Parts: sequence; structure tokens; C-alpha cells
Amino acid sequence: MPSGEDDLIARYFKPIAVHSGALGLADDAAVFTPPPGYDLVLTTDAIVAGVHFLPDDPAATVARKALRVNLSDLAAKGAQAAGCLMTVALPASVDAVWLQGFSDGLSADCADFGCALFGGDTVHTDGPLSVSIFAFGLVPQGKMVRRAGAQAGDRLFVTGTVGDGALGLRLLRELSAALSPAGTQYLIGRYRLPQPRVGAAETLRATASAAMDVSDGLVGDLAKLCAASGVSARIEVARIPMSDPARELLCRDPSMLEPILTGGDDYEILAAIPPARAQAFRDGVAAAGIAATEIGEIVAGDAAPQVIAPDGRALSFARASFSHF
Amino acid sequence: MPSGEDDLIARYFKPIAVHSGALGLADDAAVFTPPPGYDLVLTTDAIVAGVHFLPDDPAATVARKALRVNLSDLAAKGAQAAGCLMTVALPASVDAVWLQGFSDGLSADCADFGCALFGGDTVHTDGPLSVSIFAFGLVPQGKMVRRAGAQAGDRLFVTGTVGDGALGLRLLRELSAALSPAGTQYLIGRYRLPQPRVGAAETLRATASAAMDVSDGLVGDLAKLCAASGVSARIEVARIPMSDPARELLCRDPSMLEPILTGGDDYEILAAIPPARAQAFRDGVAAAGIAATEIGEIVAGDAAPQVIAPDGRALSFARASFSHF
Repeated sequence: MPSGEDDLIARYFKPIAVHSGALGLADDAAVFTPPPGYDLVLTTDAIVAGVHFLPDDPAATVARKALRVNLSDLAAKGAQAAGCLMTVALPASVDAVWLQGFSDGLSADCADFGCALFGGDTVHTDGPLSVSIFAFGLVPQGKMVRRAGAQAGDRLFVTGTVGDGALGLRLLRELSAALSPAGTQYLIGRYRLPQPRVGAAETLRATASAAMDVSDGLVGDLAKLCAASGVSARIEVARIPMSDPARELLCRDPSMLEPILTGGDDYEILAAIPPARAQAFRDGVAAAGIAATEIGEIVAGDAAPQVIAPDGRALSFARASFSHF
Repeated sequence: MPSGEDDLIARYFKPIAVHSGALGLADDAAVFTPPPGYDLVLTTDAIVAGVHFLPDDPAATVARKALRVNLSDLAAKGAQAAGCLMTVALPASVDAVWLQGFSDGLSADCADFGCALFGGDTVHTDGPLSVSIFAFGLVPQGKMVRRAGAQAGDRLFVTGTVGDGALGLRLLRELSAALSPAGTQYLIGRYRLPQPRVGAAETLRATASAAMDVSDGLVGDLAKLCAASGVSARIEVARIPMSDPARELLCRDPSMLEPILTGGDDYEILAAIPPARAQAFRDGVAAAGIAATEIGEIVAGDAAPQVIAPDGRALSFARASFSHF
């Protein structure tokens, strides 16, 4: 590992900072000229070893997950990513091989998602490794999609599949013989490397009355969207999209429903779409190659959202969403 | 301490997030409409317990220092602060009293410096407490003051006094009987609570060919400014501004010169000013109530900057700047 912070930045992060405004990471700050007519959408999310990723996860996926959890927030707000800054807290155990893997992973995702690295800070810690990313994106002025805004009658959609990440984390901690190696790898991959639904941003701006990133579990995040909008909701378990491996685990062990619906690490988008725009939403996300499934609807009232089982009962959960506290 | 992250944010941080674009910290992201004709200046700096502050420093000064080290960067770039986002990593030992003090300190400084809190993330750590702040400011388009740009003949100025923070940290670790209680408290205060020179921003834009925030020691940071500008420099120890307590410590122990010049934690501004604009610079900062002292000049070449002692010798230092690695 290089001896000083400047050397470390020059070797591992300067090559990624290709935007002219990053000034080669050799200034106190970076500069960005916002295009006229756009708002900036600002978000920050941190991931910590042992909490949001496992200490022996590959360095490249640690970097990519740190960026992608932020890109997922931007996408849910209808924003196009523009740039990011990063703080990494490194324990002494981190070596040059790890740093190179981390840098390579970050570089690949910054390029793939058009999210330029504008700067950062590198600190030493005797605690766990952590990566905090601040990301900013652009939306036409006044067009950010909010959590507030859902109306009774809106259809509720979720992208992709739900529960994979939470099951992947369980499998990393305790391998299950009940699942094929391919299924196991699929779920672990979904935990380590979220797929931010960046292609849905434009369609969300055009069609959604409210939307959010599902990161702490579908049930709890739906409750947050409803609370922000002053409404309630009703979703059906039978309609919730699950991957084949998740469904296979659930068939063998019905208690897996709880982590699937409340475990978090989905990084899918939950959106409330007025009925008149539902087809436009379906068409828009499909054109972007993103699956989206209607799982229920917004209803009036301020009760907790109802999660209806196939037998018609309303389910309740010990805790509605994952909390890191 | 509240049981969940949402409760914690609602209790301690939502009251600070008064800007409408922060959406009460109840959305995935915040929104900021940049004023036309301005560039955004982006910076991030993290502080870690045991490295950048002491674990028993008052919670309020920890919060304020975390913000101020970023405000210092913005000021040095000629930018006016606009907003910030924060990630705090909290160990289990943090209690409600600490959080309230932290929140009060952050609130006071956000208000005093016009730097709105737009969002953040709160994570749990079994390592040291850390605070990472991302701050953004505004400059008229194309007017950010860079490290690159200094020319031979430019006069070198530094604001405030140099070395106080590094001496304050020494006194916190090992109290010196050689200094009065008032002097000791002054230096400790300078370590705990930097004074970002935000009033100098406009004058820097109008007069500086290059500038930077002195955070890692005057000698090392001057070398960075020179390297970025492709020049060298010559400064005189006798002209370097020091506070009375710093000078008193130096009189009793000449070896204190090294921490004063290389120890860091100054958060003053080093600026290269063309001779024709030197008087305008002096007048501008004086009008803002900020002391600035001419300490030397930029010279041609790529040699390391020379630090000239009162007897005419060029000094050398074991290490030119503080490194946290």
C-alpha cells in the first residue's frame, strides 16, 4: 500500500477521475457547471463492512455496491446520474491488491453509469472498512419524483424481483443445501451487486405520482411512501415478483416470506402510478428492458399498508423493514 | 438513543434540515435548483475520532469541525457555501446527550454559515466515530480559484495565524506547564474549532492567481500549490503570522517550529496574488475582518519551496506535512 494519502489517491483514484471538473483530484475541490433548466438531485449512502457487505466480499463489488446504492436512489427520483464524491475509511489490513480491485470496480461502474468521480477523501480507521458515496444527478426543473404524491387509486408497481438480496445475505452466512449452486450464486450475486434501475428514470418522471428506492424491505418502504403521501395501500403476496431461486427457497420454507418482504437490499423501485398512466409506465420500463410488476394499489386512509396472503388474510411482520441499528 | 435510524434522523437532524429542498429528510434524495450563471464547487472531507479530533472532544465542536473543514475548502476556492450532506458512523457508546450536542453544534454552524443540511446517512460502526461531510458552494461560472495558476513574482499571503491547531492538539495530549491557562485554552480551541475564512472568498476570486486551504501544514501545502502551478516559492519564517501563545511556546522551545509549520489543522488560506493586485487583496480581506500576512513569493522553477530562517539558512523538515497515514 502506498505510504501516504496523496500517493494512494494518485495511484488508485486519479485514473478514474477523468471528468475535467475533477481537476485530477489535485485541488481542494471540484467544479461542475450545471446545465440550465435542471435541478440537482442529491443523495448519500454509506456501506460498512459487516453491516452492508461482508468483509471478504470482493473489493470490486464493494466499490460497485457503494456506488449502485446511490444510483438506485437517483433512478427512483427520476434523475440521471451526473457525478459522485467518495470517502473511504480504510483499516490497516487493506493492501494494494484490494485497492486495485476496488479501484477497477469503481472505474467500471463510473463509466458504465455515466457517473463521474469528482473527488473524495481517504481516511485511516481502526474500525471496519466503510465507503460513503455522495452522488448527484439531474432532472428537468421541478420534475424530481418524490415519495409524497401517491393518490388513492394509484397502481403500485415494483421493478425486478423482491427478496433476492436478503436471501443472498442469508446464504452467505449459512449455506443452504436446499438450493442449487447456480441458484445460490444468483442470490449471492444479487446481494453483492445491486442492479440500479437507471433506465426507469425517464418513465418515472413522466408517469409516477410517487416513487422510492426499495432498500430496507418492500413492506417497510411501502409504509414510508404511504406515510409521506398521507395514504395507505394494499398489496398481494401472490403478485410480488420473485426470482426462481427465491421462489424455490420459499416453497421449501414458507418462513422465508418474511425476509423476502422485509429483509432489504433489493434496490428495486416502488412506484405509484395513476391508472391512466399505467400502460405508459409499463411500456416505458419495458422499452428500457426493465421488468415491472403491478403488486397492488394505493388506498385512502392512514392505516399501515395491508399485505394480503393468497388465502385473503392480512399478514403482519415482526418488523416491517431492515434496520441497521 | 432512539431505537432506529429513522427515529434518530427525525429527532436530531430533521429540525436542522430547514431548506425546502431537503424535504424534511423524508425522501430518498434532496433537490437543489442551481442559480443560472454559477458553477458548483464540490468538496468532501471526513474526520475520524482519534485522528482528526479526540474522542472526548465536545460533541458540538465535533459537528462544527466536520462542517468547517469543508467550508474552509470552499472559501479557499472563492466559493460561497450553499449546502451539505453528512454521513455519521456512530459507535454504540453514543448516547442521546452526545447526539443532542452534536445536532445543536451542526445546527448553529449551518445557520451561521448559510450552509443548509440537505441530507445524510447514519450508520452503526464498531470502530471509531466518524463524520463525513460533502459540501457544495457556488462561484460565478469559470471563477473557481484553483491551486494551479500561481506565477513567478506572485506575492504569497496566508490568513490568520499558523500552527495554533497543531500546538493545540499537542497540548490536549500533553499539557505544558510553560503556557498560561488562557493560552492553552486558546490553542486547544483553535484545534477543536477552525475558523473557515469564508469572508475571503469574494476577494480571492477577484485577486488570486491560485489559492488553497492550509489543512496539512503550511510547508507541505505550499509545495502542493507550487507543484500544481509548476512553480517554486520562497517564504520567510520571520514573516509567518503566529498567535501570541504559539510564539510563547516557540520562544521556550525552538523545536516547536516544525509542528507550527508542518503540523496541519490550520484551516487558513494560502493565496498567490499578482503584485498589481496585492493591495486589492489586502484591502478586500481587511474589509471582511480577516487578517492576512505576506510571507514570501512565488519563484520560477520546480525545486521544493524554500523556507528561509531569520539567519538566512533554508530550513528542511523531516516531513513537510501532516499525513493521517
